[in-house]
Amino acid sequence: MKDAYDVIVVGGGAAGYTAALTLRTLRSDLDVLLIRADEKAQVPCAIPYLAATLETCDKNILPDEPLKKLGVEIAVDEVLDINREAKTIETAKGLKFKYGKLILATGSIPHTPPIKGINLKGVYKIIKKWEVLQELQKAVRKAEKIVIIGGGFIGVELADDLSNLKKDVTIIEILPHCLLLNLDEEFAVKVEEILKSKGVKIMTNCRVEAILGKEKVEAVRLSDGRTIPADIVIVAVGVRPNTSLAEKAGLKISERGIAVDEYMRTSDPNIYAIGDCAEKHSFFTGTPTPTLLASVAAFEARVVAANIAGLRLPRTVLGVVGVFLTKIGGEAFGAAGLTESMAKRMGFDVITGKAETVDKHPGTLPGARKTEVKLIFSKDGGYLLGGEACGGNCVGEFINLIGLAIQRHMTLYDLYTMQYGTHPFLTPSPVAYPIVTAALNAYKKLKAKVY
Amino acid sequence: MKDAYDVIVVGGGAAGYTAALTLRTLRSDLDVLLIRADEKAQVPCAIPYLAATLETCDKNILPDEPLKKLGVEIAVDEVLDINREAKTIETAKGLKFKYGKLILATGSIPHTPPIKGINLKGVYKIIKKWEVLQELQKAVRKAEKIVIIGGGFIGVELADDLSNLKKDVTIIEILPHCLLLNLDEEFAVKVEEILKSKGVKIMTNCRVEAILGKEKVEAVRLSDGRTIPADIVIVAVGVRPNTSLAEKAGLKISERGIAVDEYMRTSDPNIYAIGDCAEKHSFFTGTPTPTLLASVAAFEARVVAANIAGLRLPRTVLGVVGVFLTKIGGEAFGAAGLTESMAKRMGFDVITGKAETVDKHPGTLPGARKTEVKLIFSKDGGYLLGGEACGGNCVGEFINLIGLAIQRHMTLYDLYTMQYGTHPFLTPSPVAYPIVTAALNAYKKLKAKVY
Repeated sequence: MKDAYDVIVVGGGAAGYTAALTLRTLRSDLDVLLIRADEKAQVPCAIPYLAATLETCDKNILPDEPLKKLGVEIAVDEVLDINREAKTIETAKGLKFKYGKLILATGSIPHTPPIKGINLKGVYKIIKKWEVLQELQKAVRKAEKIVIIGGGFIGVELADDLSNLKKDVTIIEILPHCLLLNLDEEFAVKVEEILKSKGVKIMTNCRVEAILGKEKVEAVRLSDGRTIPADIVIVAVGVRPNTSLAEKAGLKISERGIAVDEYMRTSDPNIYAIGDCAEKHSFFTGTPTPTLLASVAAFEARVVAANIAGLRLPRTVLGVVGVFLTKIGGEAFGAAGLTESMAKRMGFDVITGKAETVDKHPGTLPGARKTEVKLIFSKDGGYLLGGEACGGNCVGEFINLIGLAIQRHMTLYDLYTMQYGTHPFLTPSPVAYPIVTAALNAYKKLKAKVY
Repeated sequence: MKDAYDVIVVGGGAAGYTAALTLRTLRSDLDVLLIRADEKAQVPCAIPYLAATLETCDKNILPDEPLKKLGVEIAVDEVLDINREAKTIETAKGLKFKYGKLILATGSIPHTPPIKGINLKGVYKIIKKWEVLQELQKAVRKAEKIVIIGGGFIGVELADDLSNLKKDVTIIEILPHCLLLNLDEEFAVKVEEILKSKGVKIMTNCRVEAILGKEKVEAVRLSDGRTIPADIVIVAVGVRPNTSLAEKAGLKISERGIAVDEYMRTSDPNIYAIGDCAEKHSFFTGTPTPTLLASVAAFEARVVAANIAGLRLPRTVLGVVGVFLTKIGGEAFGAAGLTESMAKRMGFDVITGKAETVDKHPGTLPGARKTEVKLIFSKDGGYLLGGEACGGNCVGEFINLIGLAIQRHMTLYDLYTMQYGTHPFLTPSPVAYPIVTAALNAYKKLKAKVY
């Protein structure tokens, strides 16, 4: 290790990893040091699947080889202090490094709701650390009765994977449905139905008042007085940006993370912040948005890499679209951009179009499954604001296609004449491609029964 | 049935079907008659899978219900004559109808190469008619030794499906590789390797000189003198536009089909032509292109529906992008836009970028499979000209995403900061999304090792 680097990246998750990787890909002349707290970096998105699908935490490692192959140096250490004037950092192991540019990718930390008993033994939070997850993995596999507080993505994915182990799982969600921050009600209800069919109990509109137990957790008490017995409790009520290092260094912090401009530059021109620790703005309104996703982190990392590399690659983030994907009980769900209810809350006058088809053609082909699509347009101009879908695995890239259409400011008029390819085993029929059908159905509503 | 209709559609394939469906969806006040020669319309794209996957031709029907539900009238008949002045048509059953607008969707007919013995018993062409396909299905299932002349999509898909029946299948292709009109060599070779591993014999750079046999086919003789024994021979060397009705009516015919303007209007303002029978132009150069695909037919049908319905939906076809998909031995292949070799032949100065990844993350997840992507850009401006991919089923919508990026004139700069979503079971990793990696790799080449 040297004592000075052109670029130092703090954090080894999706943001830091992609920043280091991209920088060295673009500029092998720059010395890049990545400092992360953990010996082994976990793939964040797959953490819920450590319950059953992934045997061990070692099967869920973000590999170092691609970084090392490109010449990124990796230090397992913790950055304690930044001296912005001297452009140096100091670490827990007592080392000191000089930096040209510093990238903060310090991630997020789980929300800890102020519930009585939250610190009892047997109450777990999802912390992206090998040691913590190793312990949680053992605990969930041993437990019989598991209560999950929070029906967001982590909560439902964890419940789904746990149900494969035939555990007694209960989700407690404060909103009327699970996933309601990312899916419209009709899709959220489908997710719940699948989970219920797999034996998961779902209690919505419920607030946890206390976690009960003497030495360790024994039950969860709701505000309506009901109690649910629990061997362990997993708290998955979201995360908040980890801004402590930035705060200590006197960088500007906003309500939703480290304050950054559209170049992902903090209040110090030599320091960038990316990923969960940095504030984000909506693609649609520019207002702050809590879209903390690994894919967004990787996108921001590339923007910063272009800025530091000094290249004519795009150097700004002009708002986060937000593309969410999950798979519950074998059914894929996805959403890009705004849901109908979100769009309405934001003040858009919307029109929606739906389509239902099969993902192979003819539908008599083995393995053909139903696909449902909903598109949300702004009445004003017909701009695509969002899309949701469920069906087979191809919903993943299908939602990415919708996400791209949003980014390229496409309208329902454009989608009506979208060109696409089809194949019996790979896509819906050419006469019923669901994006086109949904756009057409939205258009019909827009014309308000003129014909 | 009435004796006059606002719109008469001639042909019930993907083009005619979609035109009638879309017209009545947009304008239920218009009387629409669809005339087709066949009692049962076959799904064109799935015809190769009648060999083994689809038990009977009845499992491969383009359903009438959606049309009937919308009030489209269907006549099984053949249009023999168009009287353009009187705006009437006459049919084989002796009926006469008046039309307001006429849509010709008469499709294509198989090329018949001038080979000695082509009319022997046991030599089949792929004609999209229930009766013909029914007979072919019986013949291929009975035959042991099957020779397929032509290694295009139909040829390789048919060979793949036949290999599932453990038949002795030989493809004879005149070019150096199968599928070379739609895939670059490295992907075409992969297709061949898969087919060979399934026992299919592939003879490339080979020209058929004669089909031998007395009463029925016995063998195929190549121009180099070799002979290949055959119980049946299937000729799949492409199709040509079926323009006979249009010609008879005195409409302008071009080298590649019924001549149409960008509104898909023929030389008669009251007659439109769509699908395989109509000429097409390239999205990239405006030059004629032989992209005869069901998905293109459906796209053109929607453009004509907008024109006839008189709505502010897009009314022009500004070039065909061309999106091809297939699946061989369980591996999906796709191409959108131009291949590298096509682009070079057209005079583009190109730069390519590749990426290889797995379609799940971490790669240790069950069922994770390799995905390969190649993107082709114009050096001038960095515009995306084409993309190819192979891997699991999601290659279908992934190629459609690339097709959309081409349509929206995206550059490698845009793709570098594309926003997308990821999920362990549904997509590659956020740090290695292959479109972004391929764009980055192309950019690196463009910078020509400055760093």
